[in-house]
Amino acid sequence: MTVDLTNVFHEIDADYENLKELLREAVAIQSVSGDPSKRDETIRMVHWMKDKLEKIGVSCELAALGNQTLEGKTVPLPPVLLGTLGTDTSKKTLLVYGHLDVQPAAKSDGWDTEPFELVEKDGKLFGRGSSDDKGPVLCWLHAIKAAQKNNIELPVNIKFCFEAMEESGSVGLPELLVREKNRFLAGVDFVCISDSYWLGTKKPCLTYGLRGICSFFVEVTGIKQDLHSGVFGGVIHEPLQDLMYVMSQLTTVDNRIRIPGLYEQVAPLSAAEEKTYDEIEFDVAEFRDSVGASHLPTEDKKTLLLRRWREPSLAFHGIEGAFYGPGEKTVIPSKVIGKFSIRIVPDMDPDQVNKMTIDYLNKVWKERGSPNVFKPRPGHSAKPWVVDVNDSNFMAGARAMKRVHNVEPDRIREGCSIPITLTFQELTGKSVLLLPLGAADDMAHSQNEKNNKWNYVEGVKTLLAYIMELGSA
Amino acid sequence: MTVDLTNVFHEIDADYENLKELLREAVAIQSVSGDPSKRDETIRMVHWMKDKLEKIGVSCELAALGNQTLEGKTVPLPPVLLGTLGTDTSKKTLLVYGHLDVQPAAKSDGWDTEPFELVEKDGKLFGRGSSDDKGPVLCWLHAIKAAQKNNIELPVNIKFCFEAMEESGSVGLPELLVREKNRFLAGVDFVCISDSYWLGTKKPCLTYGLRGICSFFVEVTGIKQDLHSGVFGGVIHEPLQDLMYVMSQLTTVDNRIRIPGLYEQVAPLSAAEEKTYDEIEFDVAEFRDSVGASHLPTEDKKTLLLRRWREPSLAFHGIEGAFYGPGEKTVIPSKVIGKFSIRIVPDMDPDQVNKMTIDYLNKVWKERGSPNVFKPRPGHSAKPWVVDVNDSNFMAGARAMKRVHNVEPDRIREGCSIPITLTFQELTGKSVLLLPLGAADDMAHSQNEKNNKWNYVEGVKTLLAYIMELGSA
Repeated sequence: MTVDLTNVFHEIDADYENLKELLREAVAIQSVSGDPSKRDETIRMVHWMKDKLEKIGVSCELAALGNQTLEGKTVPLPPVLLGTLGTDTSKKTLLVYGHLDVQPAAKSDGWDTEPFELVEKDGKLFGRGSSDDKGPVLCWLHAIKAAQKNNIELPVNIKFCFEAMEESGSVGLPELLVREKNRFLAGVDFVCISDSYWLGTKKPCLTYGLRGICSFFVEVTGIKQDLHSGVFGGVIHEPLQDLMYVMSQLTTVDNRIRIPGLYEQVAPLSAAEEKTYDEIEFDVAEFRDSVGASHLPTEDKKTLLLRRWREPSLAFHGIEGAFYGPGEKTVIPSKVIGKFSIRIVPDMDPDQVNKMTIDYLNKVWKERGSPNVFKPRPGHSAKPWVVDVNDSNFMAGARAMKRVHNVEPDRIREGCSIPITLTFQELTGKSVLLLPLGAADDMAHSQNEKNNKWNYVEGVKTLLAYIMELGSA
Repeated sequence: MTVDLTNVFHEIDADYENLKELLREAVAIQSVSGDPSKRDETIRMVHWMKDKLEKIGVSCELAALGNQTLEGKTVPLPPVLLGTLGTDTSKKTLLVYGHLDVQPAAKSDGWDTEPFELVEKDGKLFGRGSSDDKGPVLCWLHAIKAAQKNNIELPVNIKFCFEAMEESGSVGLPELLVREKNRFLAGVDFVCISDSYWLGTKKPCLTYGLRGICSFFVEVTGIKQDLHSGVFGGVIHEPLQDLMYVMSQLTTVDNRIRIPGLYEQVAPLSAAEEKTYDEIEFDVAEFRDSVGASHLPTEDKKTLLLRRWREPSLAFHGIEGAFYGPGEKTVIPSKVIGKFSIRIVPDMDPDQVNKMTIDYLNKVWKERGSPNVFKPRPGHSAKPWVVDVNDSNFMAGARAMKRVHNVEPDRIREGCSIPITLTFQELTGKSVLLLPLGAADDMAHSQNEKNNKWNYVEGVKTLLAYIMELGSA
């Protein structure tokens, strides 16, 4: 028996100003987990959310994670917010995960508006975290509020796990979840995460696969401090020259990885799986234009999607220790750290990828023959994740999307990593649904991150429909 | 007739606390000319120095240079301080040049102390500008004060030209000097600049040659904004990957330049000139240890000095636009600007070096075949400079050093650039003496810049002796 949600959906539309106000409050809290100077704000964000959940009747607890050392300082880790709404043993239980922290952002990075002030323009809500992941987290809150206001009984118990370290490798969370396996995680039947994106801007989708990641730091030193390039130029081995060379040996111009044996680790593509790619709605030209590129390494739809989702990729992020400001500074940096990461897919194993990569870096270094000191090391890593698209949790998600959007969602993978997905799957033994609410051009992690007003409001409806559909899952 | 300076030198020694206090005040003014937010401080530094000069009887004027556009902002250029002490037409006239601005510095760059607080430790005065160039500028002031206190008549008139844009390419100064050729610069007989360093830490020297510089910006773009490396990794041409490759093609592991034809521009080395290198006191092992390197590209004394002073060199400074903070940020930067510079020597011409370098970069880029947008461009440039070591100005400097240090100074070149040297020589038609006061390990432009207490005090004596020696030059 399906509950009619037509009136509730109208009420959600009408409640837009309240929905927006709450997102404005959340965006204004600068919960940048990677910046130790913003740790207080990151912790404040957890308390802010706890307050909101308690107001709708959720029993909350804060799970302490201790301290961490960041940039030489000891700072407290933000606690994990664990919430429980309903303990009816006759009902199944949904576990919702989301994160309250955000990537760094500054207007000087090239934002058109202040990143921590929510600005509505042309139907878009600009602000850091508006889409990744404060917007979706608030959609859960609004969905439950809407049900309560209309006296609709939720057909499932709901548990919440909201962390504030996702953008910094979810430090402490996996260990907490292991400890909570037989308590908080006990009795969970479904898991849902809204922290990914649609493939385009119009058609909804469900996500059944994620890439993992192995990140790397390549440190080169050899002189004891920065030197004047006039006085010392030409008579020392410059660490930055060495680093540039080593980094340049990692990829080809078309962004294929040169580490021997890496692609051989990828699971073979069956004919049946390959066929699913033919059916996915994806416009290569629109994608190319959305990133602003003149050409892409491949413009074949299937090859491009396979490279995004089903093949490893290597990206360079930057260099720590060299001059980065505008203008000129005639200095020879003494210690530089190159940063890059490799996205990994089944059947690649992080430990093996780390070893192959470090071995290759050491081989390139040896061939170079510099007397400088070379220290490549792995950073954080996460396994890839893939699941069955036909289980009851996924089917409930698909029905919910059809109720809101009147279209069968595409089944896609994502190129990015949400490592906790795999942790939840392993610890609960249950299906994890990735239910994206935001559009492909939301620009998570980038300048001018936004959430479309339409996606934000329809997201509330989708999550409510999904909760209701779980009643018959 | 030589004036006995023994007692004055004792008084200078005894006056140390006052010498130090003035340097403390000067270092505390954050006159970073390259930082538009510090422009007020940079201008304040000029006024501070004007006040000090006026107190010893120098007639001062401030020559306005108008505005400049820096990082998109229009900011006023600091005025040039022009001073005149003595107008006795029976005396010759010395023109003194120095600069009041400094390189950027922050404790977080790796300083052991606050860079803008003068800290004395183990006979060293640490602080940004203590050696480059506020310390030497103050030595002139102290030297004249000491003469006045002892009623010693100066045998020459002295003119001062102190600017505050040296670390940012001396914007506006060459044009000002051209305008002042027949007024302020008229009647100048000698020019002296104390803005370079001894070859080692113990033996004084005089500098007869400087390298010039051509600096470069290599911009690569191609996507419209920074992108999430998970979502977009593997399917775009990354600007930073292209930049690393291009930069890696500029030098060999031993820091030799790969731009074809560049070394062929260097003036031939005569047997007589080569012989002078045999006589210079220089300890390669001490030099290697001072920079903290395990090996150098060459450890032959003559070859090393030739490469520092008489050959071009290429140094990488950094990258603008990529992630530079600690930790991880899984972003693909959209617009990156690589910074490097080439030090040039006679007979290299900056325009030709610029053309050869840009041509080579374009050739490397074409071979790479990336669809990204490549914009290499020259930054500021300066010609190299070499003079005769046997003229009367140099001989007066040599006698002064012998009076203070009891040793014949080495005649050396410098690897760095002081472009204004050549401008003064061309406009006055007179000899320019580079009279260094600081030790080789003063770490100008670097972390923990210092001036030895001993060098600072002996510097005052040296400049006083030099002024007196000019009476018989």
